[in-house]
Order: sequence, then structure tokens, then C-alpha cells
Amino acid sequence: MKKLNIGIIGLGRIGKMHLENLVKLPEYFQVVSISDLARTDLATIADHYQVPDYYHDYHQLLEDSAVDCVLIASATSTHAQIVRDAALASKHILCEKPLDTDVNRIKNLLTFVKQAGVQLQVGFNRRFDHNFSRLRQYVTDGVLGNPQIIKISSRDPEPPALDYVRHSGGLFFDMMIHDLDLMRYLAASEVTTVTAKGAVLVEPAIGKLGDIDTAVVTLQFANGALGVIDNSRQAVYGYDQRAEVFGDKGMAKADNDRQTTVELNLATSTQLDQMPHFFIDRYRDAYLNELLAFHQAVVNQQPVSVNGLDGLRAVQLALACQKSFDSGQTVTISY
Amino acid sequence: MKKLNIGIIGLGRIGKMHLENLVKLPEYFQVVSISDLARTDLATIADHYQVPDYYHDYHQLLEDSAVDCVLIASATSTHAQIVRDAALASKHILCEKPLDTDVNRIKNLLTFVKQAGVQLQVGFNRRFDHNFSRLRQYVTDGVLGNPQIIKISSRDPEPPALDYVRHSGGLFFDMMIHDLDLMRYLAASEVTTVTAKGAVLVEPAIGKLGDIDTAVVTLQFANGALGVIDNSRQAVYGYDQRAEVFGDKGMAKADNDRQTTVELNLATSTQLDQMPHFFIDRYRDAYLNELLAFHQAVVNQQPVSVNGLDGLRAVQLALACQKSFDSGQTVTISY
Amino acid sequence: MKKLNIGIIGLGRIGKMHLENLVKLPEYFQVVSISDLARTDLATIADHYQVPDYYHDYHQLLEDSAVDCVLIASATSTHAQIVRDAALASKHILCEKPLDTDVNRIKNLLTFVKQAGVQLQVGFNRRFDHNFSRLRQYVTDGVLGNPQIIKISSRDPEPPALDYVRHSGGLFFDMMIHDLDLMRYLAASEVTTVTAKGAVLVEPAIGKLGDIDTAVVTLQFANGALGVIDNSRQAVYGYDQRAEVFGDKGMAKADNDRQTTVELNLATSTQLDQMPHFFIDRYRDAYLNELLAFHQAVVNQQPVSVNGLDGLRAVQLALACQKSFDSGQTVTISY
Amino acid sequence: MKKLNIGIIGLGRIGKMHLENLVKLPEYFQVVSISDLARTDLATIADHYQVPDYYHDYHQLLEDSAVDCVLIASATSTHAQIVRDAALASKHILCEKPLDTDVNRIKNLLTFVKQAGVQLQVGFNRRFDHNFSRLRQYVTDGVLGNPQIIKISSRDPEPPALDYVRHSGGLFFDMMIHDLDLMRYLAASEVTTVTAKGAVLVEPAIGKLGDIDTAVVTLQFANGALGVIDNSRQAVYGYDQRAEVFGDKGMAKADNDRQTTVELNLATSTQLDQMPHFFIDRYRDAYLNELLAFHQAVVNQQPVSVNGLDGLRAVQLALACQKSFDSGQTVTISY
Repeated sequence: MKKLNIGIIGLGRIGKMHLENLVKLPEYFQVVSISDLARTDLATIADHYQVPDYYHDYHQLLEDSAVDCVLIASATSTHAQIVRDAALASKHILCEKPLDTDVNRIKNLLTFVKQAGVQLQVGFNRRFDHNFSRLRQYVTDGVLGNPQIIKISSRDPEPPALDYVRHSGGLFFDMMIHDLDLMRYLAASEVTTVTAKGAVLVEPAIGKLGDIDTAVVTLQFANGALGVIDNSRQAVYGYDQRAEVFGDKGMAKADNDRQTTVELNLATSTQLDQMPHFFIDRYRDAYLNELLAFHQAVVNQQPVSVNGLDGLRAVQLALACQKSFDSGQTVTISY
Repeated sequence: MKKLNIGIIGLGRIGKMHLENLVKLPEYFQVVSISDLARTDLATIADHYQVPDYYHDYHQLLEDSAVDCVLIASATSTHAQIVRDAALASKHILCEKPLDTDVNRIKNLLTFVKQAGVQLQVGFNRRFDHNFSRLRQYVTDGVLGNPQIIKISSRDPEPPALDYVRHSGGLFFDMMIHDLDLMRYLAASEVTTVTAKGAVLVEPAIGKLGDIDTAVVTLQFANGALGVIDNSRQAVYGYDQRAEVFGDKGMAKADNDRQTTVELNLATSTQLDQMPHFFIDRYRDAYLNELLAFHQAVVNQQPVSVNGLDGLRAVQLALACQKSFDSGQTVTISY
Repeated sequence: MKKLNIGIIGLGRIGKMHLENLVKLPEYFQVVSISDLARTDLATIADHYQVPDYYHDYHQLLEDSAVDCVLIASATSTHAQIVRDAALASKHILCEKPLDTDVNRIKNLLTFVKQAGVQLQVGFNRRFDHNFSRLRQYVTDGVLGNPQIIKISSRDPEPPALDYVRHSGGLFFDMMIHDLDLMRYLAASEVTTVTAKGAVLVEPAIGKLGDIDTAVVTLQFANGALGVIDNSRQAVYGYDQRAEVFGDKGMAKADNDRQTTVELNLATSTQLDQMPHFFIDRYRDAYLNELLAFHQAVVNQQPVSVNGLDGLRAVQLALACQKSFDSGQTVTISY
Repeated sequence: MKKLNIGIIGLGRIGKMHLENLVKLPEYFQVVSISDLARTDLATIADHYQVPDYYHDYHQLLEDSAVDCVLIASATSTHAQIVRDAALASKHILCEKPLDTDVNRIKNLLTFVKQAGVQLQVGFNRRFDHNFSRLRQYVTDGVLGNPQIIKISSRDPEPPALDYVRHSGGLFFDMMIHDLDLMRYLAASEVTTVTAKGAVLVEPAIGKLGDIDTAVVTLQFANGALGVIDNSRQAVYGYDQRAEVFGDKGMAKADNDRQTTVELNLATSTQLDQMPHFFIDRYRDAYLNELLAFHQAVVNQQPVSVNGLDGLRAVQLALACQKSFDSGQTVTISY
């Protein structure tokens, strides 16, 4: 198995997590360089994780011919430019979602990447989750027959900082985009209409910023199936991540993971163990599997499992949800 | 505790079931008469269940001054007239849903019943289900805080006969009406808008009758909460009845009942026991509790737990769902 | 279906419960008489449940030729004599466990009953529990293959009154006897050895009476299988009733029932609903099914499902457990 | 945090697994050398995992002053000698279970290791399992009160090769030793008596070797608690690993892990996902946590979490079980 030399661009919370995961996969990846525009502790990080090179300017990282591929975890607004530059430098790319916020810009970008002949995988990590990938397997194996109703509950344990919300692009774009991608993954069909209802029930300050914190979106699919996603910015009991596929041959549902299987029976209550509270804990294996899938696609020159078109579609859906919410009516999507 | 003399009007499948339940409650009810327009075996049934009197014409049943109350389980189209006649005869009434299909007729009926001074309970039996009433209890006790998202999955094991579908009033009116009532029960708030999406995915012949067999309805409530109901006429794995309430203090979800708690571990699979297949099995206790609640309200002269207004609201919601489905857009309800 | 006229002898807690169950089964049983040596409110009870006759002396009840069968729920010490008298009067018998505390007396009694040609069913109600009968079904259907390990946990919610303990015959005889019978039912084989370990961990006063409140018993079966029962007089979290059968083709385990399927997720814990606290709640259906099984055996002249030999074996096993506990060593049982 | 240089002695299945785990923990361990008496592919393995040195003779590994600690995963019969040599060379030791099969030899060994002033941790990995450590936490936190009944089910998916069985020391020594250690861990008390019952129900050839494949062992603890372990060499449905602690304040039980939380509902059955089939999958995290605990103890000069006395006790218990099984009677253990 070929080991890939990888460079990481952007070392915020997500970039750092990917770094820690990559060093746990020494048979697959060698982290040869890291870059971040703003961090002042790059030398310390590089030393701690035994990364040979570090840069503030990602262009330097791309100039290193020893780099096979890059992982882009910088700010969303920089994704398109860095993807373009990486493609130009013939590096295979694993880019965090979303690719961009503008549909036409993404379309142009995908054309460019295709011409450059490099791989581009988009960071929808939930496709690699053990529970959700089992649901998908049941769909593609035909165990459930034709999907008819698909449901996703996705609720954060607590709302993000208001400053984050201000630049997030809104709930549909920042949070539900994961679920919109997961819907396409589970339905194995494209969405034709969305109807988005939302409310400010958690944090009034979020409403003052023109955003919402609670939403229910209904989807219709090209194959006739119906879907529904519900989101909340605050589930006080933890990070609630569930999905269900109902088809003409059966139904499969994925419940939350819990830290242990222990059931505690006390005089006044019977308690189950807690669910993982933080997305990095909940999707720990998913993030590792995402990296392994990227490795396999690059090394074996196979199609990536979440490609640029998937990245585009998710953005189109999020924008349609916003439009439906603003208008109060159902929106038919044109691709 | 006062025992009530009860007469049953209409001995189809549901009327028969109520009869069987009533004789299991000898401390609460004495079935003193039954009536049915069409059955030719009334004498046999009366004999088997030791019911003193039987009639083809329900007016005769109403004339018996020994009758304290009636249970109406006749065809929907006869409900309004029989309720009116029973009220005129000063009998307390437990009437199967729906009261009628016309909103104005129901409003007039409720006025009439009120003036007659009799109790009217509507047969939304699911409110008395052990699981759903526990959810409701958590809402009213404040355990969950303010409800923000409410979800109901309600799927039949198999589609009804086409002839039944033809006269059913459609999925929203015949099937979802139970869930629409349950939504109001769990939200403790009135619905302001509905958005109904539906499809024919189970049985094309249902589509040819102008009806649908699969639906997802989104609701907005006066208190800001969002709700979603999904219905299917055919869940091949059984009678799927679940609900969930998500609030700012917690979330409670009711899963399906299963016949036993036994988990069977075999070489190729781990299996849970089956869920009850038929609504009479699934809601066995709910039907008994419904009768006991009616008994208590009548004997103690307390308000019934599902009153005429509840019956009206459910019909209004079902009609709004149909209108939304037909128009493809969100419908705001005016009461 | 033939309706049976039944008389109840002994109206303590259990006799009263049987009375209430019998009136819920009006198609199967008519309670024609009740008797109790000590109660002063027999007239009131008879009136409330519409029982025509009542007696203090059970001999009078037996003299009534309209009585088809009797349910004996009097004190244990009276069982043998009443069974004998009822058999002599040609009444079919459903007798609460245990038949007696003396093995030879039971053997003589069984011979007598057999000669009288009446049916005798012993009140091991747990065989009729939905969970445990499903386990048994898996055994007899061969789904699990040959049973190899059988486990029963049976724990009371709280210890009985000391005065009850004093006359109970001890934990093995009073409490574990149910589990010993259930073991034979699930193993479909006879026990060859028992090894009983016990302790006083719950209530020192029980120890002062020479009894124990906690026990673990290991059993070896004629078919080679091994079994283990654990008992406690006090499970602070409820009435804990579980069983498991492990065979060469699979394993099935019955967990506790819970009042609802609701899962409550709060900020600090996820809670399941409570288990039924009291044996009459937990085994509600089992007690009804027990009566129906008795009805069917008598009416169809089929063998009863828990016969006199089963009653004998349970007593033999309880006595062997006591002997093992006293000696600290394994005891081989001779039948 | 200090990184430890570690050498691995013995590269069979377990040694190889530890090697793979150690390279996933680059912040804690550097594998500097491996040794194995018999393997001919040491150079290939060393190259693949980037291990600088490899030897056939472990003495050479011990001579390297850069080695801080060793992990011993060689054949059981060599453990005592290698532990002694490693201690003499002042290396901290993580040794697979059992330390030896002879109680006196272990006692002498522990004295020697103590005098050498090195750490010795014994490889009872299950103490580090997420489920079982949660149970232990509930015991030590007092959540369950005083333990009264402790139960462990531990069943392998399939019997080992007969050649393995021949040299395994028997079921009690080879398999149940893990559960005997877990019992002490969960009871937080020493065992006073054991009563072992066993049978040959799985594989007659195992019986011909004088061993058994099925066992139930009852234990009495110094604190009065009772325990029971059941073992089988073949659970056709998977690797069945469960435990339960019942105390005077509550009960906690750990069920099996399953690969996902997905519940699959089909027309004929409802299925849960499979449990991990192989002990390396089941205890994946436990093996990693075991290494981290060893790291922490050595680096911080804290007591190891599974010490030499724990290793001794487990052997004493396994020998007592064998003695009880052979005699058919309860055995009181003298330490």
C-alpha cells in the first residue's frame, strides 16, 4: 500500500483534528507539512507531531513536489481559491464543506479541477459514520426496497457563539447542509422540491442576527420518496444524530450512539449511558474512515466517494431551503 | 362507583370491539342494549354477551329511559344525526371519529349538544395509549420544557380494501386525522399552518381513486413549535406507531410496543420480537382506558378528556392538509 | 365454548386477585361461589362481584353440584386437605403453589387425585408469562438447539413482612420455588444436582429468623445443561424478572417489561420508564392466561399445562436447595 | 508528556496486535525493538512498522539501554523467566496473563520484581473496557451501594483449535481467568469460596482431552456478596461479553456492544446489528486504554492498575475452580 505525503492547509479546530487523526494512520499518510495564515505556534505544533515543514503561506506548501495531496480546512471563503491553486499544482484534494457559497463559482471550480486531472473529495464526513453507512448499505443492497420516507434528526448540544453564527451563512448553510447531503446519500435520488419551516426558539439573539435556530424541512425526491429533516441548535441532552429509511420492503433506523451499553437501574429511575456530546467524539471513526477512503481513492485512482458534484448539490439544496423559508412556500429546485 | 347503563349504536368491527371491551368492565358498565341497521345476527350477539335488548332502529334504543349513555360506532355519515338524537334524548355520548366531514355542521352540532347538557366524548383512542399519554404527561408536567419539535410516525401494516378507500374521505381524513389530534394533544397548542406532501408509492389503484398512500405533513403551532407527521398505508414490518416531543428541557420518544421483551440471538442475526400487527391489538389498553375515562367523566360530571372541539379541530386540520396537498403550498388555517 | 362454573376457596390477596380476573372472563367462567374461613365481608364481596353464593366453610361450596371446578388460594397448610376434598367431590382443581411441604404427602395426594379422575393444575403462573413462554417456545421449537446454560434473575422489590417470613418456609420454598419450576420449564429436562449459596445482605432480622434474603443456586440437568438462579428479597429499582436460555443454535433472553416504551432524554441523564413494581402488575396477563389454560384443559379434557408432578418436583427442588445451603455442598437429588 | 521507548517480546497474534496499537499512539510510545524466537519475518515486520531493531533472542533486546519498558507476549511458560530478566535489566514490564501456572513461582517472582524496583502490569485488558470500567466506576462511586450479586457471561464465538486446547491449561485457566479477574475488579472484595460445575456440550474432542467447554462457577466474597460466571467455548451468535452488578442501592448491567445502533425492521423479523465477532474487535479500545494506563503509571511513577498480586489472585482462583470441578464440591480458598 502506497503511503501518501499530505499537507494540511488551515489549522483551526477541524484542521487540528485532522492532523491528530492523520498521525494515527502512519501506514497510510505521512504529514509532511502544515500551513496556517494566522497561527503563531506552527513550529511547536510541527515539532509535537513530528511534521517536517510548516508555512504561513499555503503557496509554499503547494510548491513542495514531495506533497502528494492536501487537506483544506481553512475558512470557507478561501476554499475555492485554494482548491484551484492546489489543482494547478497537481495535488489531490480533500476539502472541507462547503466548497463555496456561490453555485456558479462552484461549477467553474469543478470544471477547472476536472481539467487538472486531480481528485477532489468533499468533507461530508457523516457518510462514513458506522450507523449511517449501514443505512446506506441497506438501501443500495435493496434490503429496504424502494425508499419511500427518509427522516433525519440532527440537533446540536448547544448553539455556537453569536460571532460564529454571524458569519456562518445561516442554519441551512452551516448546519443542515450535512443533513441535506445525507438525505441524497440515503435516498439515492435527487431532490426536486424543498419546503422549509423555521423558528427562533432557542436563542433570541440568533433571531436578531436574521438567522433561525430550529427548522423542519420536507423534501420530495425524483424517485417519488418524501424526506424530512429536523434541526435544532440546542438539544440539552446531547448531540442528537439519528436517521431512518422506510421502504417498501422494510425500515431501518439508526439511533444515537451511547458511550457504553450500561443500563443503570436506581430506585427512582433507569438510566442509559450518555451519548457523545461533541461532534468530534460522535464522528471519531467517521473522520478516520473519511481519510482512509480518500487514501484509497487516490492510491487506486478510483472515484472519490463524495465528489465535487455532491459538494455542489448540497449548496444548491441549502440555498433552496433558505428561499423556501423566506417565502413561506415550497420551492422547486432547478439544477 | 356508579355503574353506567350503556347502549351501543353500530356493530361493525369497531362497535363489536367496544362491546367486547365493555363486558370486561362489569364494575363500570352494563351493556343494556345494542342496535345495528343491517346486521341479521343481533339476537345471537345479544345472547352471547348477555345484552338484554337489541334493535335495528337506534331510535328505540334511545327511547329506553334505563340507558344512561350511548357509544356511537355507526357509519361516519350518520354520526351527526345520531349524536343530535342522543343529545335530544339526554344520553351522554361517546362517538367514534370523525363527528362529521363538514365543519359548519359540526359547529352547529356542538352548540346543540351543549344546550342539551350532555357529555360528548370523541373517540380519539390514541390519547389513552400508555406510551402517548406518558409523552403528554411529560409535556404538561413541564419535564420537557416548551415543546419545539414534535414528530409522529404512523404507518399501517397494509392498505385497506379499495372499496374502503373509495369511501374513506382520503388519507388525511381517514388515517392522519388520528395523528393530527395527537399532535394537538402533544403540543398543547393550536396549529397555525400545515404543509402536506403526498405520493402514491404503495398501491397505484389508490392513486387511480384520487387518493394517496404516503404523506409527510409539516405543522406550525401557535406557540412557535414545529411538527411533522409521516403516514404510509403499508409498513411491511408491522403497525408502526411512534411519537417524539423535543423541548428546551429535554426530549422524550415513544417507540413501538413489542409482544415480548425477548431478544433472540442466532448465528446470522439478532432479532427482537414482533410489534402488534393490528390496531386493535396495539391499542387494546387505550380502548379500555378510553371507556374508563368516559365513565369517570359522566359519573363525576367532569369534563371529558376529548371533547367536541377536539373533534372539530381534527376535521379542520385534515381538510387543511388536503387543501395544502392539492395546491402544493403551505396553508394557513383559520378557525 | 363451554362456560365453567367456578368456586373460589380462600379470599386472601391472591384469591381476591383471581376473583377479579375471573369476572373479566365472562365468556369462560362464571364465579358461582366463594368461601373463606376468616373474612367477615364475604357478603359485600359477593354482592360487588355478583357472586350468587358465599360460605365460610368450603365443604358447603364443594357440596354444590353446580360447581364444575374450584380455585384453591387458601393457606399452604390447608392445600392438601382441600385438594383431596375437592377431588372427592369430583371438582376440577386449580391449586396455588405449593401443594404441600411434605414430599410423601404430595405423592399420596397425586395418587388420590388421579384415581378421582379430576384435573389438577398447579399455580405456577410464570409459565404463562408472555416473555417466558416465548423463551419456552424457542426451546421446544428447536430454535435454540439443545439448551446448555439457563439463567434466571428473580428479585423482589422489597422484603415481605417479618411475620410473613416467619411462616414462609424460607426463601427457597417461598420465593425460589417459582424459579425452580421455571428452570424445569425452560430446560425441558429434570434437575440432577443443586448447589445453593445464600446470604443475609438485605435485612438482618431475616437472618435472625434463620432465613436468608439473597441466594445463588447452580443446577445441573439430566441433559447436561447447567442452570443458575439468583434471588434477592430487595431490588430497590423494582421487581426484576429476567431469564435467558443459551443453546447450541442460539440464545434468547427476556428482559424486564417496562410500563411504556418512552425514553426520556434530559440534560443529565437518559431514562427508561419504570418496570412494574408489584407481581400482580408484572404478571397480570400471566394470571389471566393461567385461567384460560385451565379452562381449556377442563373443557377439552386435555392435560393441564402445569400438573401435579410439576408441583411435586418444585417442592423437591426447593428442599434440595435448602439442604445444599445448610451443608455448604452440592446435593444430588433422588426422585 | 514523556514518550516511552518500548520493546516487544513475542510476536504471535497478541504481540502483533500490541505492535499495531503502539504505532497508533505515537505521542506515548516509540517501539524501538521487537523480538521473537521463531518468526523468520522479523526484518519485514520491523521495516513495515518502522521499528529500528529486531532480535531473535530477547536478551539482546533487554541489553539496549534505550529501552524503557517491555511488553511480554510470548508463550505462557516463558513469562516468569522473561519477567525476571526484564526486572534484572531494570525495564518496566507489561506482561500478558497469566504470569505463570504455579502459585509459589509467582509469589517468588513478585518478590523479585518488587526488589528490582520496576513496574509490573498484568494484561487483564477487560478492566479497561468502556462497559466494564463503567460498572466498576459505579461500584467505587457507591452508586450501587454494597455489591450483593455479580454476574458475568463470557462466551467465545467458537472453540479454539484442539492443539491449542491441549496446551491451554484448561477452560478455567485459559478462558475463565479473565472473568475471575473481572469478578474481583467488580466486587472490590476477595473471593472466599468457589463452586465450579462444567460439562462437555460443544465439542466431544475437548472432553477427550480431559477439558470442558461449558462452565458455571459460583463465588462467595469476603464482603458477603455472591457471584456467578458462565462460560461457553461456542456462542454461535457471536462473542458474548456481559456483566452485571446488583447492590443495595441499584443494579447496573453492561450488554454487548453492537457494530451499529441500526434496527432493521423487515416483514418477518426485526434485527439488531451484529456484535463484534472477535476479541480483538470487541476489546479494541480496551487494549489501547491498557497501553495508555501502563504509560501513565510508568511515566508518573504511580501504581499500575493491574498489579502482580492481581495476576497471582487470578491464577489462585482458576486453580480453585479446577479443584472444585474435579471434586464436585465447594472449595474454600486459602491465600
